[in-house]
Amino acid sequence: MAQVLIVMGSKSDLPVAEKATALLKKFGITFDIAVASAHRTPARVEELVKGSDAEVFIAIAGMSAALPGVMASFTVRPVIGVPVQGKMSMDAILSVVQMPPGIPVAAVGLDRGDNAAVLAAQILSVSHPGIRERLLAHREEMADKVIRDSEEVVLGVQS
Amino acid sequence: MAQVLIVMGSKSDLPVAEKATALLKKFGITFDIAVASAHRTPARVEELVKGSDAEVFIAIAGMSAALPGVMASFTVRPVIGVPVQGKMSMDAILSVVQMPPGIPVAAVGLDRGDNAAVLAAQILSVSHPGIRERLLAHREEMADKVIRDSEEVVLGVQS
Amino acid sequence: MAQVLIVMGSKSDLPVAEKATALLKKFGITFDIAVASAHRTPARVEELVKGSDAEVFIAIAGMSAALPGVMASFTVRPVIGVPVQGKMSMDAILSVVQMPPGIPVAAVGLDRGDNAAVLAAQILSVSHPGIRERLLAHREEMADKVIRDSEEVVLGVQS
Amino acid sequence: MAQVLIVMGSKSDLPVAEKATALLKKFGITFDIAVASAHRTPARVEELVKGSDAEVFIAIAGMSAALPGVMASFTVRPVIGVPVQGKMSMDAILSVVQMPPGIPVAAVGLDRGDNAAVLAAQILSVSHPGIRERLLAHREEMADKVIRDSEEVVLGVQS
Amino acid sequence: MAQVLIVMGSKSDLPVAEKATALLKKFGITFDIAVASAHRTPARVEELVKGSDAEVFIAIAGMSAALPGVMASFTVRPVIGVPVQGKMSMDAILSVVQMPPGIPVAAVGLDRGDNAAVLAAQILSVSHPGIRERLLAHREEMADKVIRDSEEVVLGVQS
Amino acid sequence: MAQVLIVMGSKSDLPVAEKATALLKKFGITFDIAVASAHRTPARVEELVKGSDAEVFIAIAGMSAALPGVMASFTVRPVIGVPVQGKMSMDAILSVVQMPPGIPVAAVGLDRGDNAAVLAAQILSVSHPGIRERLLAHREEMADKVIRDSEEVVLGVQS
Amino acid sequence: MAQVLIVMGSKSDLPVAEKATALLKKFGITFDIAVASAHRTPARVEELVKGSDAEVFIAIAGMSAALPGVMASFTVRPVIGVPVQGKMSMDAILSVVQMPPGIPVAAVGLDRGDNAAVLAAQILSVSHPGIRERLLAHREEMADKVIRDSEEVVLGVQS
Amino acid sequence: MAQVLIVMGSKSDLPVAEKATALLKKFGITFDIAVASAHRTPARVEELVKGSDAEVFIAIAGMSAALPGVMASFTVRPVIGVPVQGKMSMDAILSVVQMPPGIPVAAVGLDRGDNAAVLAAQILSVSHPGIRERLLAHREEMADKVIRDSEEVVLGVQS
Repeated sequence: MAQVLIVMGSKSDLPVAEKATALLKKFGITFDIAVASAHRTPARVEELVKGSDAEVFIAIAGMSAALPGVMASFTVRPVIGVPVQGKMSMDAILSVVQMPPGIPVAAVGLDRGDNAAVLAAQILSVSHPGIRERLLAHREEMADKVIRDSEEVVLGVQS
Repeated sequence: MAQVLIVMGSKSDLPVAEKATALLKKFGITFDIAVASAHRTPARVEELVKGSDAEVFIAIAGMSAALPGVMASFTVRPVIGVPVQGKMSMDAILSVVQMPPGIPVAAVGLDRGDNAAVLAAQILSVSHPGIRERLLAHREEMADKVIRDSEEVVLGVQS
Repeated sequence: MAQVLIVMGSKSDLPVAEKATALLKKFGITFDIAVASAHRTPARVEELVKGSDAEVFIAIAGMSAALPGVMASFTVRPVIGVPVQGKMSMDAILSVVQMPPGIPVAAVGLDRGDNAAVLAAQILSVSHPGIRERLLAHREEMADKVIRDSEEVVLGVQS
Repeated sequence: MAQVLIVMGSKSDLPVAEKATALLKKFGITFDIAVASAHRTPARVEELVKGSDAEVFIAIAGMSAALPGVMASFTVRPVIGVPVQGKMSMDAILSVVQMPPGIPVAAVGLDRGDNAAVLAAQILSVSHPGIRERLLAHREEMADKVIRDSEEVVLGVQS
Repeated sequence: MAQVLIVMGSKSDLPVAEKATALLKKFGITFDIAVASAHRTPARVEELVKGSDAEVFIAIAGMSAALPGVMASFTVRPVIGVPVQGKMSMDAILSVVQMPPGIPVAAVGLDRGDNAAVLAAQILSVSHPGIRERLLAHREEMADKVIRDSEEVVLGVQS
Repeated sequence: MAQVLIVMGSKSDLPVAEKATALLKKFGITFDIAVASAHRTPARVEELVKGSDAEVFIAIAGMSAALPGVMASFTVRPVIGVPVQGKMSMDAILSVVQMPPGIPVAAVGLDRGDNAAVLAAQILSVSHPGIRERLLAHREEMADKVIRDSEEVVLGVQS
Repeated sequence: MAQVLIVMGSKSDLPVAEKATALLKKFGITFDIAVASAHRTPARVEELVKGSDAEVFIAIAGMSAALPGVMASFTVRPVIGVPVQGKMSMDAILSVVQMPPGIPVAAVGLDRGDNAAVLAAQILSVSHPGIRERLLAHREEMADKVIRDSEEVVLGVQS
Repeated sequence: MAQVLIVMGSKSDLPVAEKATALLKKFGITFDIAVASAHRTPARVEELVKGSDAEVFIAIAGMSAALPGVMASFTVRPVIGVPVQGKMSMDAILSVVQMPPGIPVAAVGLDRGDNAAVLAAQILSVSHPGIRERLLAHREEMADKVIRDSEEVVLGVQS
């Protein structure tokens, strides 16, 4: 029984999904992953969501990205939507964000599979204190990286 | 058994739907109408589409307008999508137009319930010659109206 | 006497047209193809449309993509418009979608020649049951492909 | 034989056309005016343009504003296109500006019937020195108006 | 100790916040509310977030809506961002959605305070089964409303 | 004394200018060419425009493309503005099109130096019948090219 | 000799200018004000800027807002540009922000005459410590207002 | 004690920062440089700004570019914001420009680190006449470059 179910609308979204899986592994969060299309395999999307015990869903899709909203229509558990960059990009962002009243999707930025994982961890950490610890550690690492980057930049300018 | 099934995502889309029903009546095309939401009542959308004998579907929705695409996912009959004006409008247009490969929606313009009806009539006229006659008559009326408008404008400028 | 007439605004739109011809062949739908420009050869567009017995038209054009609308002005048969990606892309999408009352174009997504073919098949299937069978088979293939992609992704993640 | 032919796509564009006629009268330029739709009355647009002796054309249209481009396709005389504000506005602007190679439209700003008239006068003044005089006088008036406005503003701030 | 802390960037955002408070009350979720500006009172935003025991934060802001992101920078608990309609609207949507790697905001749609509340309830329901029950009941009410709306529309069309 | 003065805002706009010069040569229209920046060399722009006997001006510029408007402010002769593609492109298009009342710029499409030349020729042809002949010949060539392209496409599909 | 010169492109921009003058008065900063158009009165803009001893300029303009950039072309003193809301708004924002290398305009937000005044005060405070004191006091007032607003909101929710 | 503090949100913004440092060196303006993220290291941003004696700040950031505004919230000295090109670019531009009343950011164009430096120099020149001299010399160089470019272009066309 995985804590997170990641569904991507097309196999081509895999690089975005892998940004999510890398961080979920780091946070010690279990996950399942699947390809399912809101438009080509609607029944499969319904089965995946309704048959899942996941506490949080991550939906990754481009263009008229209906997948996150359709997944949200089948559950009252949180669905995180990741719009994927394409020929327009604005189509995917607006499709994910602009949901009707009552059925929210938690939209993250374009191609931000990583942030979907962090948000999933934040949601799970409400009831899993261990994940909160790992999130705090991750944030500290990021901050340390900023400091190191800054030092490198200063050295580069001085030299 | 109606020839066209109109589904609107929200009762507030009724003015756009009525532009469609007015023309369908004029063309002698039978229709059913319903409110159903891709996100709030996904099962109902599926039942409506799969249980319908309509030859053409019209889907009317705003914001992240998933309804046309979701309807298209349940049928291989033509689905015409009408994006509805809202706070952004671009969200609805792109959601309706930018469908993934294999599952097209026939998008018409913002709030163009009337054009959805004309397009439905054009599709039905492929096998119903009577509808083609009415379409030609309708187009002639529109052209006559343009001529009359032109005469009025010329008179207005001269006076 | 072909069932579909494909007109592209410029020879450079050929890759988009070929997405359409591949699927039309698969569906057993006959088609003619031509290059004609709404702006450079308006008379030729008129002749092509008025002289055609096609039941459905596909118009492919970029920038201020007037071709679909101009073709629609010469017929009451359905015209499917395919906006083509360019320096802006939004110009082509809006030109194809935002038609005035009475003269609809059935817009599909950016560069979606494939979806234009599917939509044409859906329209023709209203009166040709054989095409409907092929559409259903095509959709099943697409769904099977999604399942296979999903299995590959799961295997890739596990390994 | 009028020097300018103004064609508007719909009677509702009249307020924009009247901004043009007011200035053309002021510049002593003769004009004809008509309503004709690129999509509803394509033959009429062709007749109007081909049958006109006008030296410059002004085309006023909204949404997927094909009228200016279609008029330009029937003549090598200059066509000035005026996009009209609507639910999107960007659709009209891009449709008028983004013409394909070889068939330019001289686009002016949204609802700028007045600027279409000034541009027509500028074009005609290439061969009509009298119009140039009136253009120079008009520009001086505008400059004087700016000065007076400035004085009023300064007085308003001081009081 | 409230479960949710709502922060709005300006008192003028109150109508959006009230959409959230109405639903939180309905779901039996306790909340605190405050006005604090990421730009005018940065220290206060930091104090509010760091001093709060809330399990979820809701941040409501317009224009260059920095508030959700700034709140997210002070906590690893989930922050839901609500962009508020203004002269542009796109500025607020993009500011909330397009967060950098590592610090996600869960963006909901323009002015969707209601969806922020539903999303907060979904997140809390991960560990509070009672809230899940209320969410399911709320969703059923919405679905019933759609059915009733549909019946009214059908009656209206028939009469 | 050249008939057309081409001013580009930056040497990097040369490829767009060369599309114009190629056609002007073909039409037998004399031209001068210069680089001048509305922002870096405002006095030079004023001198170039005021000191020129050109009957038509072509202004080529990107980003906040002020050059066409500034040139228009110094003359009542027609100024054709060519927006140049950049990181945004929309900035240049809107800067060129959206001129205030009284000072029009004749905007052509993004990077359309060729259309600026055709438009200049159309304007000059109002008083130079020879240019009109060449424009008609050019248009015929374009139409012939479309026919040949169409034949090639048909052959390619058949083979 | 005023410290700031405010130039607005049109008298209709006065409400935006008055947001600036109200704050400049509050900060004890002297200013002159004028209407001048980059396109209708280019010489006047040049005279105003070159003839002014102001330490900072504020330029207010809408549509293809060339005024800030043109003023910047005549001085190396800081020019603050205020885009004014219109039918598009994006045209003004991009025209003001997207200046070419070497000639910056300090852009503030749409209709933000107030922020232009604050920015002018910030610039002047580099050498006028008294202004810095008033800026700090102003910021404290704003922060106090946020606190009071917050208290009102909390009371309103509790009642 | 440097006169300017440059903060970039990410090390990847270094090429934009280097456009600024090159010009600051040329103008004889001292500067410090650092990487700090409004979202990953908010405390560090506060320390950097509050602990700095710089007279002007330059903030460089992409996506939902909160850094300039957050820096502005900690100081009443001028903050120049440089939006950085990314997958959207419009997100960064609007985030930097559309600041709320009272806390302006002086926005320059996309990736215009160079213009941020020129603007910083313009601000500093209010009290440092030496910098004004260097600014005037720099502008003259730019103008000379335009003249030379123009000559090259003319020679290229003639040959």
